[in-house]
Amino acid sequence: MGPAPSILVRMRTAYHEQLEGLNTILGEMCDLAGAAMARATQALLQADLAVAEEVITDNDRMNELSARAEEQAFALLALQAPVAGDLRGIVSGFQIVADVDRMGALALHVAKVARRRHPAKALPEEVNGYFAEMGRLAVQLAQTAREVLTTQNPQDAIRLQEDDDAMDDLHRHLFTVLMDREWSHGVAAAVDVTLLGRYYERFADHAVLIGRRVVFQATGQTPEQYLEVS
Amino acid sequence: MGPAPSILVRMRTAYHEQLEGLNTILGEMCDLAGAAMARATQALLQADLAVAEEVITDNDRMNELSARAEEQAFALLALQAPVAGDLRGIVSGFQIVADVDRMGALALHVAKVARRRHPAKALPEEVNGYFAEMGRLAVQLAQTAREVLTTQNPQDAIRLQEDDDAMDDLHRHLFTVLMDREWSHGVAAAVDVTLLGRYYERFADHAVLIGRRVVFQATGQTPEQYLEVS
Repeated sequence: MGPAPSILVRMRTAYHEQLEGLNTILGEMCDLAGAAMARATQALLQADLAVAEEVITDNDRMNELSARAEEQAFALLALQAPVAGDLRGIVSGFQIVADVDRMGALALHVAKVARRRHPAKALPEEVNGYFAEMGRLAVQLAQTAREVLTTQNPQDAIRLQEDDDAMDDLHRHLFTVLMDREWSHGVAAAVDVTLLGRYYERFADHAVLIGRRVVFQATGQTPEQYLEVS
Repeated sequence: MGPAPSILVRMRTAYHEQLEGLNTILGEMCDLAGAAMARATQALLQADLAVAEEVITDNDRMNELSARAEEQAFALLALQAPVAGDLRGIVSGFQIVADVDRMGALALHVAKVARRRHPAKALPEEVNGYFAEMGRLAVQLAQTAREVLTTQNPQDAIRLQEDDDAMDDLHRHLFTVLMDREWSHGVAAAVDVTLLGRYYERFADHAVLIGRRVVFQATGQTPEQYLEVS
């Protein structure tokens, strides 16, 4: 009976090291998604083709990391016999991969609109301020998502929702500008602005989802359950 | 040593029954998503408020099933010690929950546009045909996703991609109509059409993703890997 506990301890240690490894990859993916959205916004506002191309090329790196994260999560599931709390962490890991992957894809969409309209600017001057601010919020949300992945702090994870409320407000205001009778930039620009607005909004939604999953990783509860008891 | 194999056999049987139970819930969710999109399209084309309200109310059922599916998947992970192939099935199960959940949300978005514009029609007559056909394709994709979940047939699962190509073609044509100088329905209608087109396209994308996950469930390979060796 002697060696059993020490084997268990070693298994648990190896397990937690691997789980940290997974979270490190997920954090790196959040960084990439945030950086991609920062540059995509720059490309959009300044009609900067080189920057748009960079975002598009760098997306390969996201796909690589995404594949590595899933492999790591499968290895964690398969190699040890995880306990309930660990299972939450791993399953959330898979879901976070999907969310941050999608954030990268949305930044890519923004960059592609900038490229498609180059050398013209995709955005009428009038809405530049909205997109500059939505870009800033998006990058901030990606950064907070990255931080809570590391700290596993449920309060901070829930706070992602508040930043998203600011994004939703901006998005709504943007629509009032579009719907205004004075909109003089034509239908093609309206279509671009509509889709671009949606990309930023969805980027923010996925960051919020990451926050929700971190709450579940850390507490085993949904944010609503957690707020009710705390 | 006698009883051990029989215990294992019973564990495996219970396991497979539970996995089937999970896939049954996922199939039911696909049915719901397809039915929701069928009625949302009807509400949109006919400015039918009652049908739009039905779609919105019935979304609660989707959320219930979604929660049940996740519980079932966690129970499968936690209660037995699954082997590698089983793990693929369960993890894919979690991912499919997220996809089909999103399909339901997109049908809900369509219904809400119909409700918001009622008693007016959200769509100019000119694009009705596109949306009727996109609706038909979306419902068909949800149905095929449901079938391959049950049959686990990788060839059929891959074929979802082809139906999605038809959706992408329609979506592209829709944009040429929007961008045409002759578009006479104003910016507000263009914004609605842009977002609605995006909802149908994303609905189809998620059905394709379910197909990809079924290929992985059934073969342990991505569709690309599977096609290369088969």
